[in-house]
Amino acid sequence: MGKTLAVSPLAPAAFPDLPVIDGVTFATAAAGVRYARRTDVMLALLAPGTAVAGAFTKSATRAAPVLDAQAKLGGASNSGAAILVNSGNANAFTGSAGQTSVAALCAAVAGTTGIPDNRVFTSSTGVIGEVLPHSKIIAVLDDLTAAQSATAIKDAARAIMTTDTFPKGASADISVNGTPVRIAGIAKGSGMIAPDMATMLVYIFTDAQMDQAALQALVSGQVERSFNAITVDSDTSTSDSLLVAATGKSGVDVTGNADFADALAGVMLDLAHQVVRDGEGASKFVEVQVTGAANDRDAKTHAMAIANSPLVKTAIAGEDANWGRVVMAIGKSGAAADRDLLSIWFGNLKVAEKGWVSPDYDEERASAYMKAQELVIRVDLGLGTGQFTAWTCDLTHGYIDINADYRS
Amino acid sequence: MGKTLAVSPLAPAAFPDLPVIDGVTFATAAAGVRYARRTDVMLALLAPGTAVAGAFTKSATRAAPVLDAQAKLGGASNSGAAILVNSGNANAFTGSAGQTSVAALCAAVAGTTGIPDNRVFTSSTGVIGEVLPHSKIIAVLDDLTAAQSATAIKDAARAIMTTDTFPKGASADISVNGTPVRIAGIAKGSGMIAPDMATMLVYIFTDAQMDQAALQALVSGQVERSFNAITVDSDTSTSDSLLVAATGKSGVDVTGNADFADALAGVMLDLAHQVVRDGEGASKFVEVQVTGAANDRDAKTHAMAIANSPLVKTAIAGEDANWGRVVMAIGKSGAAADRDLLSIWFGNLKVAEKGWVSPDYDEERASAYMKAQELVIRVDLGLGTGQFTAWTCDLTHGYIDINADYRS
Repeated sequence: MGKTLAVSPLAPAAFPDLPVIDGVTFATAAAGVRYARRTDVMLALLAPGTAVAGAFTKSATRAAPVLDAQAKLGGASNSGAAILVNSGNANAFTGSAGQTSVAALCAAVAGTTGIPDNRVFTSSTGVIGEVLPHSKIIAVLDDLTAAQSATAIKDAARAIMTTDTFPKGASADISVNGTPVRIAGIAKGSGMIAPDMATMLVYIFTDAQMDQAALQALVSGQVERSFNAITVDSDTSTSDSLLVAATGKSGVDVTGNADFADALAGVMLDLAHQVVRDGEGASKFVEVQVTGAANDRDAKTHAMAIANSPLVKTAIAGEDANWGRVVMAIGKSGAAADRDLLSIWFGNLKVAEKGWVSPDYDEERASAYMKAQELVIRVDLGLGTGQFTAWTCDLTHGYIDINADYRS
Repeated sequence: MGKTLAVSPLAPAAFPDLPVIDGVTFATAAAGVRYARRTDVMLALLAPGTAVAGAFTKSATRAAPVLDAQAKLGGASNSGAAILVNSGNANAFTGSAGQTSVAALCAAVAGTTGIPDNRVFTSSTGVIGEVLPHSKIIAVLDDLTAAQSATAIKDAARAIMTTDTFPKGASADISVNGTPVRIAGIAKGSGMIAPDMATMLVYIFTDAQMDQAALQALVSGQVERSFNAITVDSDTSTSDSLLVAATGKSGVDVTGNADFADALAGVMLDLAHQVVRDGEGASKFVEVQVTGAANDRDAKTHAMAIANSPLVKTAIAGEDANWGRVVMAIGKSGAAADRDLLSIWFGNLKVAEKGWVSPDYDEERASAYMKAQELVIRVDLGLGTGQFTAWTCDLTHGYIDINADYRS
C-alpha cells in the first residue's frame, strides 16, 4: 500500500452510532494477510435461528468464496452461522487453490465455534491472482472466537477496508406493534488505490424474524434499486457480496411488513451511497433520474449509460453543463428513445426539451449549478411510465492517479 | 478552440500519397461556420454512374444529416452524386431546424452542380445543440464547385477535422486482370478537445465498378471488423458516418473479387487504426485479440469489454502488467466464459492460464513489455472457435484534460 489517501471530500462527517443487534457479535484481528499494523480479519457470529440471505456479483469469473457462499444461502438456520471476512487478498482467480483455502477456513471456523461448516460464509477482498495464506487467518480464529463482542461492529467495518478512505455504516430503528426492531449494516468498497481491489462487501444485521426464503426474496428485490443502481467506473468486481442476517431475537416476525421493508431499503441505499462517495478520485456525488421511459428496464439502461459515460463524468468533473453529452449517452444506450420527445434538467434547470436546447436555457445559471458538490441530472423520455434512479461520481485526475500511477 | 493540441505520439510519420480516383474531385473552403483562419467545408463531386454505400451511427439520437444520408443510400447512381461536409457544428439535437438546414444545403448543392438533391449526401461535425448556420456554407458553394480538383483529397482530409491532431488518409492499388483499380479514403475522429466532437467521419473512393447493392453488402460486412472494432472511450457519437463511393471509371467490375474486398478492408482498417491513434490523450495503441470464444459474437463482447474497461486502460497507461483487470473485464462482459479455461498473454508472454497466474509468469519481463508504445493483449477462452480483434488506446491524464478542463 504505502501511500495513504486523503479521506474523500464526499465522506459523511463521522461513522454513525450503530445499534446493537441481539444475536450478533463481532471480533477483529491483525492476521498479516497483506497489510502491516492494521486489522484485516473480522469474524461475526450469528445466533441459532438466524436466516441469512444474500446477493453476489454476476461476474463469470467470480471468486471461490463467492461461489461457496452462494451455494450455502439456502441452508438450515437452526444452528447459528458465522461470517468470516479478510482484506488484503481476494482469493480470486487462484484456481483449485482458491477452493482449498475456502474449505480450510470453513472447517477451521466450524472446529473453533461449533457452527457447522455449511453455515460458515467467507469473503475475501484484495489482490487478484495470489493464493490466500489461509493459515495466517486460521492462526487467529481462537482469539477471534474468544473476543466476540456485541458492540464491535465499527471495528468490523474497519477490518474489511482495503483502500476505502472511510469505514461505512448505516442503521434503522423501527417499532412494530410497539416492539423495537433494529437493523445495522456495514460496507466496504470503491477506494481502489491498489489494483483489483474494487470489491464491494456489505453485511447487514437485524433482530427481526423472517424465514430465509422470504428474507431472500426481499433482499433480491431491493438490491436492484440500491447496490445495483450505483456505479463508479462501470467495472465489476469478481467478489462483490451482500449478506443480510436476521437473528429473530426481537421476537417480531416482519414477513410482509412494509415498515421493515422500507427501513431495510433505507439502510441498503445509505450504504450504497457511501460506496459512491468513496469512489476513486470522486469530487461530486451525482444522482441520475430517468423517467418517462417505455419501461423500468429501459429506464435503468438509460440511467446507467449516463452514469457510466466517461464524457458525462469528465464534464461533471469540469463543472461543465454539457447536456449534449447526456443526449449522446441516451442515444448510445440501445434502449428506446425519441430524440424529439427528450427533456433534460440539471437540478431544477430545464436545459433541453423536444430534441433541442430549452428556450429557458441560461448558460450562466447552469454553470453556477454545476459547481455544487451534489448534483441531480434528470431525463424524461416522454415515452411511458418507466423510471429508474442511479448514482455515480465524476471522473477526475484522481481516478487516473489511483489506477494508473501506483501499484501496491 | 483556442488551445492547439500537440500531434498524437501515435500519429503516422506523414500523410500518405493518395492516388487520384478517376471520377472524383474535391474542393475546400473557409466558410467560418465556427472556426477562424482554417478551412471548414469540403465538397466532393462524383461522376455519373457512381455507386454510394454507407454505414452510420446506431445512436437513437442521431443527427439530421445522418438520417437524411441514410435514406438516400439506395438511390439511383446514373446521375452523379455529391458529398458536402462541414466541421465546427454537428447539426445534432437541433429539432426541426436540423432538417431545414439539411434540406437547404442539399437544394443549394443541386442548384449549383446540377446533381439531383436525392444524390447529395451531407455530414456535419462539431458542437451539438446549436443551429447550423447553413447560409454561410451556401455562400461558398459556387467557389467550391468552380475549384474542383482531382488532387485535393488531402485538403479535404484537413477541412473535416475538428480537434483531430493529424489528418487521416489511406489507399490501396490493386490490379485486376492487368487493369489497375485504386482506392483512396480519408477520415476524421477522436481528438475531442471541445465537447461533443466525437464524431467519426470516413469517405472512401474507388474507380472500381460495382452495383450499389453489392457495394453496400460488402461495406456492411467489412465495417464490423474495422470501424465497429475500435473504441476510445465507449461513448458513441450522434453523427458517425462512413460513405464508400465507387465511380466505375476503371472499367473493372469487382463484384465478388476477393482482391478488391481485401484491399477495401485494408483501407478501412488503416483509417480505423488512425482514429484510435488520435484518441484523446492516447499514449499507447492496443490490440485486443480474443480467441476460443463460444462464437464470434461472444468474442466481440469480451474484446470490447476489455477494450472499454477504464481499469484495463488506466493500467496500460501506468505500464502495469495487470492481467487481473483483464480477468475482471471478461467476467463482467456477460458473454460465456469459464474461469478455469482462460489463458491470457501480453505480447508473447503468457501471464495466466487455467484460471490462475501462469507458472512461467515473470513480473519483470511483463513490466518491460508494457513499456512499448504498441501492445497486444490476447485472451483465449478455451470454449470454441469464436474470435474477434478490437483496437483501443490507454486512458491517461490527457483524456481528463481534454474532456474536463476545457470547453470551446
